[in-house]
Amino acid sequence: MSVGFIGLGNMGAFMARNLVKSGRQLIVYDVNKSVADQFKNEGVAVAKTPAEVAAESAAIFTMLPNSSHVEEVFGAKDGIFKTIKSSTLCVDCSTINPLVAKDLALKVRDTGSDFLDAPVSGGVTGAQNATLTFMIGGSESAYQKALPYFEQMGKNAVHCGDVGTGQATKICNNMLLGIQMIGVAEAMNLGEKLGLDPKMLTSIVNTSSGRCWSTDSYNPVPGVMENVPASRNYAGGFGNKLIAKDLGLAQNASTEVGVPTPLGSLAHQIYRVLANNNEFGDKDFGSVYQFLRKTNE
Amino acid sequence: MSVGFIGLGNMGAFMARNLVKSGRQLIVYDVNKSVADQFKNEGVAVAKTPAEVAAESAAIFTMLPNSSHVEEVFGAKDGIFKTIKSSTLCVDCSTINPLVAKDLALKVRDTGSDFLDAPVSGGVTGAQNATLTFMIGGSESAYQKALPYFEQMGKNAVHCGDVGTGQATKICNNMLLGIQMIGVAEAMNLGEKLGLDPKMLTSIVNTSSGRCWSTDSYNPVPGVMENVPASRNYAGGFGNKLIAKDLGLAQNASTEVGVPTPLGSLAHQIYRVLANNNEFGDKDFGSVYQFLRKTNE
Amino acid sequence: MSVGFIGLGNMGAFMARNLVKSGRQLIVYDVNKSVADQFKNEGVAVAKTPAEVAAESAAIFTMLPNSSHVEEVFGAKDGIFKTIKSSTLCVDCSTINPLVAKDLALKVRDTGSDFLDAPVSGGVTGAQNATLTFMIGGSESAYQKALPYFEQMGKNAVHCGDVGTGQATKICNNMLLGIQMIGVAEAMNLGEKLGLDPKMLTSIVNTSSGRCWSTDSYNPVPGVMENVPASRNYAGGFGNKLIAKDLGLAQNASTEVGVPTPLGSLAHQIYRVLANNNEFGDKDFGSVYQFLRKTNE
Amino acid sequence: MSVGFIGLGNMGAFMARNLVKSGRQLIVYDVNKSVADQFKNEGVAVAKTPAEVAAESAAIFTMLPNSSHVEEVFGAKDGIFKTIKSSTLCVDCSTINPLVAKDLALKVRDTGSDFLDAPVSGGVTGAQNATLTFMIGGSESAYQKALPYFEQMGKNAVHCGDVGTGQATKICNNMLLGIQMIGVAEAMNLGEKLGLDPKMLTSIVNTSSGRCWSTDSYNPVPGVMENVPASRNYAGGFGNKLIAKDLGLAQNASTEVGVPTPLGSLAHQIYRVLANNNEFGDKDFGSVYQFLRKTNE
Repeated sequence: MSVGFIGLGNMGAFMARNLVKSGRQLIVYDVNKSVADQFKNEGVAVAKTPAEVAAESAAIFTMLPNSSHVEEVFGAKDGIFKTIKSSTLCVDCSTINPLVAKDLALKVRDTGSDFLDAPVSGGVTGAQNATLTFMIGGSESAYQKALPYFEQMGKNAVHCGDVGTGQATKICNNMLLGIQMIGVAEAMNLGEKLGLDPKMLTSIVNTSSGRCWSTDSYNPVPGVMENVPASRNYAGGFGNKLIAKDLGLAQNASTEVGVPTPLGSLAHQIYRVLANNNEFGDKDFGSVYQFLRKTNE
Repeated sequence: MSVGFIGLGNMGAFMARNLVKSGRQLIVYDVNKSVADQFKNEGVAVAKTPAEVAAESAAIFTMLPNSSHVEEVFGAKDGIFKTIKSSTLCVDCSTINPLVAKDLALKVRDTGSDFLDAPVSGGVTGAQNATLTFMIGGSESAYQKALPYFEQMGKNAVHCGDVGTGQATKICNNMLLGIQMIGVAEAMNLGEKLGLDPKMLTSIVNTSSGRCWSTDSYNPVPGVMENVPASRNYAGGFGNKLIAKDLGLAQNASTEVGVPTPLGSLAHQIYRVLANNNEFGDKDFGSVYQFLRKTNE
Repeated sequence: MSVGFIGLGNMGAFMARNLVKSGRQLIVYDVNKSVADQFKNEGVAVAKTPAEVAAESAAIFTMLPNSSHVEEVFGAKDGIFKTIKSSTLCVDCSTINPLVAKDLALKVRDTGSDFLDAPVSGGVTGAQNATLTFMIGGSESAYQKALPYFEQMGKNAVHCGDVGTGQATKICNNMLLGIQMIGVAEAMNLGEKLGLDPKMLTSIVNTSSGRCWSTDSYNPVPGVMENVPASRNYAGGFGNKLIAKDLGLAQNASTEVGVPTPLGSLAHQIYRVLANNNEFGDKDFGSVYQFLRKTNE
Repeated sequence: MSVGFIGLGNMGAFMARNLVKSGRQLIVYDVNKSVADQFKNEGVAVAKTPAEVAAESAAIFTMLPNSSHVEEVFGAKDGIFKTIKSSTLCVDCSTINPLVAKDLALKVRDTGSDFLDAPVSGGVTGAQNATLTFMIGGSESAYQKALPYFEQMGKNAVHCGDVGTGQATKICNNMLLGIQMIGVAEAMNLGEKLGLDPKMLTSIVNTSSGRCWSTDSYNPVPGVMENVPASRNYAGGFGNKLIAKDLGLAQNASTEVGVPTPLGSLAHQIYRVLANNNEFGDKDFGSVYQFLRKTNE
């Protein structure tokens, strides 16, 4: 039996190729025919539908843009559910609503198969270099079965709990990340206007209580760090549209379970403004620093 | 000549005693007579006014609650300016408005003396154990003169730039800290309602992009870490009133120099609510986690 | 055939009695037996279940606390759907999620009956005095059939459009109302600290561009107007729990349809704090003025 | 003696001409020479400096962009204070920081003259048609002396209290206005996405508790009302830069007197974003509706 891989976008294509490099026999599918053709040229089997993938696979990985794409790939007329065999392992690496993941898991289990939600962090670079972190929700046995695959595509594979907890962990982390980056942008912008050198301010914050990943590993002020998006006009990195999407998932979840998220909610609105702005839409989310500077008086 | 120390509160008393332990001869002052009496019992010279301190000191440290106290101690009828000698080193360790620090520095320099603003981080524990970090604004020569004192009261003494930059650095760090703590509280509360174990979520965030001091060193969820305020019902630590004060200074400064701080501003309002609440007013600022949980549906 | 009425709470009891006063023959139901007994003593037929109401009614009104109560009353084992006759007119006067209203309408129509969502404004006083405004979503023919009933319980009955638009109209209005009241509280509090007399400020705002219902008809500053909740320590009126609920529905809807509501979202969080606070939980929503004053410096 | 008028911008030019039309003999000044030349061509005396105006005037009106311009016109080397005669009436119609107005009043009174702060509402149209509202702070006697002038330039002249209260009243009203307009934009945008017709929603809100000037007199949704900026792509009207300025003054004042303004603060940040945006910078503040729609999903 083959390994199925559905969704060959910026991230998925690298992940699939890392499985191929590790000696796996793959069968892949993507709605974009030209991407699929590239895999064919590289000698990988290409299916015409998700159902065709499922017919040939003992394990199926999906890496898709959002909840509705995932639901479609499983549930459509020519979807996975048409042909899935009992005892297939389904692993969804997309970032989607935790409640959709739970629903899907129930349906997969009805077919006698198993399901893991396994969203990733690490971005395109992590996908390319096989250094992704997987946050995984599902049964212990499914997790153990999937572990060898995760090790071929990433360097960390954390079992978070039952189905849905992988997604929940990711959106909690990313909501916090989104808040921190805006906070860092505000603090650095304020400090500069008060006469502080941003490198000096960063070095002090990094040994103080304001320290965080966005100050010490991904600083948004141009010139403070090398090899981060801020040093190349916010090209590459984690785009405003992507973080706006993740904070939207966090807001959906907050509303569904009834918890207050005043800063998360405001951060979401700010990234939505950036995501829909001609100048900032395609930039890394650290560009919120540049955006705030534009409203200095 | 003695070393003057004015302001023997929660922090100042420990700092003054650390100078005494290091062999310094002190003359101290506090408006609270019973505190001053304790120092007298310990064999320390106690002055009746700030002017009396200034008359006997080559260096004067001040550690006071806010801008107006500092202005009073220097400018009042029996204040430091009445008797200050030329070449005295004035070091203000209070956390105050950077612009007040700059004004004061000008006046001190008019007397032929020098001024440093040197607010601290590390809290009461840092003051007690001489592990404070000093953030210092002023001339290089004054910084060099003051360094031996800082080394007796703390373990880091960072020269941030001209007068005012010590204060600016502190309020930028603390604004960011205040934002991060609320962000952590929101993310942990959301995660728990989504079924995540808070220890698991913390351990993943701590190796991911959401990592910060408030997750890995001062976690606000009871049971996740030992020896932090959250493990003792938010007693001790960094109180809501103090962080509300610091975020107020950050808002003053933001308004004065005209920079946008949407999250800093909202965080300030949230801590003000806590600071003025019977239940939360005296608790550590991590109690915002508990506060948010109370508004879960 | 009788008129059914389910939900005899603060509002519903008055509405049902107004139908009785107008000569209608009612059959009522409430989970609270003592409330139902009162109606029995007044000579009104009391049913043991919603199904019993539906069996005897040509029109059924429901007035319940939230979406899940409405779903329960219709869909439970002894619910309306068990016995509903074809051509019954169902009118839900509760304030619920517009999408739940739409779902319910589909199910009611499957039985050959019709459905209107008809949430009200006007509060307990409006219910008592039959001066409510109904905001109505559904077919024109159903609206025409229901109009005589609305005229016996209120003074306005506005047809907003298809099913769900009654609810949508109400939550849009109330989100705006909730924002305005906090805005008024902020502006009045600021004005007073700047030395303005609140009556003078109110009178100018009321003839200027800041004029709104919360300034000219429901002013939250004690002493400015008579016969409003502010003049009786915020007793009665529109409670913080109720407005928090309505703004929560608005947030749910905003998330579902993907629109940004920065002020609506922040206002929701503020009312949630009030709703869960011992001192403010049961007060009128104008008490946000008092709440803000408590955080003045 | 003449009437002095300093500041012949969009508003001031119309106000000065209305005084001329009423038969007053004016002497005017503006830094922009071409504007001053126009007045000369119309037969009005034009001064070379504010001092020259003051030398010839029994009453001086100022209408300037911000606090620092007002301070300059009074205090510069060739400013009003150089030549002001005792018993001159100074009336500042600019919108500035209330505390600057108070400072200035003290200095004017030191010269034996009197001072009123008298900011206006009504915009360019109100200035042109002499329908402005003046909000006036200062002594009763000065107010009485100035009243005939106000009546020639506007239709309302409200005495708010001591010096500074005119400014305070204006910024409180405008902070509230700025909040309401964003609230209206959010509610209308949400309603439309929920399927409501904006005209219908407006008509219901206008008879309900969400009613305000921004819904019934200045609706921001194109097509709902005629003859408002929304009906001409937000041209003319009250620009985003102006409301951002006024909400900035409100934030300054809130910080100075220590009151919480969570919605006012967030509204300020939103208008600052608009004011600094190429597309929205010069549009009426109702364009926040259009801005929010752009971030719909």
